[in-house]
Amino acid sequence: MKLWQEKLRKIDPYVPGEQSDAPDLVKLNANENPYPPSPRVQALLQQTDTSGLRLYPDANGRNLRGALARHFRLSTDQVFLGNGSDDVLALAFQAFFASDQPILFPDITYSFYPVWCSLLRVPFERVPLRDDFTIDPRAFDRPNGGVIFPNPNAPTSLGVGLDVIEDILRHNQDCIVIIDEAYVDFSTCSCVSLLGKYDNLVIVQTMSKSRSLAGLRIGYALCSAELASVLEAVKNSYNSYTMDSIALACGTASVEDDAYFRETCAKIIATRDRSAGQLRALGFTVLPSQTNFLFATHQRRPAEEIFTALKAQNIFVRYFRQPKIDNYLRITVGTDAEMNRFFTALGQIL
Amino acid sequence: MKLWQEKLRKIDPYVPGEQSDAPDLVKLNANENPYPPSPRVQALLQQTDTSGLRLYPDANGRNLRGALARHFRLSTDQVFLGNGSDDVLALAFQAFFASDQPILFPDITYSFYPVWCSLLRVPFERVPLRDDFTIDPRAFDRPNGGVIFPNPNAPTSLGVGLDVIEDILRHNQDCIVIIDEAYVDFSTCSCVSLLGKYDNLVIVQTMSKSRSLAGLRIGYALCSAELASVLEAVKNSYNSYTMDSIALACGTASVEDDAYFRETCAKIIATRDRSAGQLRALGFTVLPSQTNFLFATHQRRPAEEIFTALKAQNIFVRYFRQPKIDNYLRITVGTDAEMNRFFTALGQIL
Repeated sequence: MKLWQEKLRKIDPYVPGEQSDAPDLVKLNANENPYPPSPRVQALLQQTDTSGLRLYPDANGRNLRGALARHFRLSTDQVFLGNGSDDVLALAFQAFFASDQPILFPDITYSFYPVWCSLLRVPFERVPLRDDFTIDPRAFDRPNGGVIFPNPNAPTSLGVGLDVIEDILRHNQDCIVIIDEAYVDFSTCSCVSLLGKYDNLVIVQTMSKSRSLAGLRIGYALCSAELASVLEAVKNSYNSYTMDSIALACGTASVEDDAYFRETCAKIIATRDRSAGQLRALGFTVLPSQTNFLFATHQRRPAEEIFTALKAQNIFVRYFRQPKIDNYLRITVGTDAEMNRFFTALGQIL
Repeated sequence: MKLWQEKLRKIDPYVPGEQSDAPDLVKLNANENPYPPSPRVQALLQQTDTSGLRLYPDANGRNLRGALARHFRLSTDQVFLGNGSDDVLALAFQAFFASDQPILFPDITYSFYPVWCSLLRVPFERVPLRDDFTIDPRAFDRPNGGVIFPNPNAPTSLGVGLDVIEDILRHNQDCIVIIDEAYVDFSTCSCVSLLGKYDNLVIVQTMSKSRSLAGLRIGYALCSAELASVLEAVKNSYNSYTMDSIALACGTASVEDDAYFRETCAKIIATRDRSAGQLRALGFTVLPSQTNFLFATHQRRPAEEIFTALKAQNIFVRYFRQPKIDNYLRITVGTDAEMNRFFTALGQIL
């Protein structure tokens, strides 16, 4: 043991999900969008003069924030940008969860919440979901340093309506409530309309799913101008230039193509609902998804067995070896062709 | 005062440098490269099929890390990537400065070091430079939790040789020593050759200056595989996907075009040395720069006055209202044409 090793941060490495380069891979394990981004993104890249890359990007991302503000009918100073919604969330934990009281999130939810708490030394308590995986708003009625949950929730795929969000907000007026809307574009439950009414509400969204831009790392928060300025202050104390020029421009092009966005989301929703029916016909119990993935358990065959058998055929879905959900599969909705290959393999396995 | 406001992080906002959209602006205030990036970057962007952006990027950035490893004759697991060198440095502060002892850095140096210490609650002590702005290696001979300084230093533009770096390393074997080589490609003082000898050495570099890619946000650390894995663990607990697909690909294209890189650096060095002579002829004292900027003080006219007069002519240089250097200007080296406009204006002002 060298003395300098004592000065290193002790941390359990978080291991990203598995990857494969197999050419015939059906990749239904990362909740990626099966369709390309807006054709305007392709057109933009082809026109880009890279000589501009010698300059630092606009640290304030004014164009993209303006496009998002118009899209959501908010003001530009209510939009905060980050390098993917993970970056926005990690900064939000630092900006808004600075008390000594525990923050609250569901016991089954996005796996990064406890990781950020551990890295940033934020105390937390897990709030149990009901047995049917729905959120119980009364479970959040206790002293806390903040509340965060995804709506729709992951990996359960279940969403709650505005009435439940508003119930939780009414009972949690002394802390910041973050609603992580990573999957909201595949549902009807966005709470952007509540921003005018609750000044302690922060909504986080991403372009990785519904806008097919996972490769570009664009996330954002929508909140009051006051809370956005706290996020800006923390971000500017960390890295003033998190967003690169090309991501800013491509994100703007995507937001401005609303027709393509709606059409892609509608296609995924149609494939999702048809796939849920096919899974049920094969003996699965499928939660009513409001996302771009399905969370399902088979009545007889263990989830891990199905997961492994699919993987052997180069079809990747997601399996969580974790209490309460270790007999479930999370299946990202692919194209119709990908889902056909998935169902052919699944039929053979069962 | 609402109760939730008590749970917010109290932080002094760090304000990024001033911007201007004036079309005839001569921008010599951000140490940006006046030349475009490698033509291979332009060719690559035009060929990019954006349908791949629907997928998450390679979280491990294998291609770019491999290209950098070949360039520096290191192994791939000795290269760590980040979203600009600010991201790499902020993660390095969290990874390597985790003791209760103060980290040491020069009293005149990169302004972000104390900002990260404050955000991350890392104690620090400022080590005075000598009166001629050179680094005194003996000043670091005291108990500490780590050492960091830029070589060449900013904003002084002065570099030290390998003998000084090695002297500091020999006297600081019980902590991590970070050498921030943001400007090293305009000098001959890189300490990459010391990596095989000192396992507590971490070198941080950026593609924002010498590779004209400030707009893409690419930085990296070079160190032992052991230290790189600690950086990876902290990064993966924060945001697994900091680097987007396009930045990874463009960075690789740049590293693989060594001829263009050398040619551009040589042009900037030639303009720098000629400009230093012109400044001296106008009555400036100019520090012997090993960077892409010049740090200069006029024998009679106050720096702030010159700064303001240049700004009125849309020529932006950098002025620091800060003890010891408040009579200096930091002037980024532009193209010959930009420097001609700068010198014409400067001649009129003086």
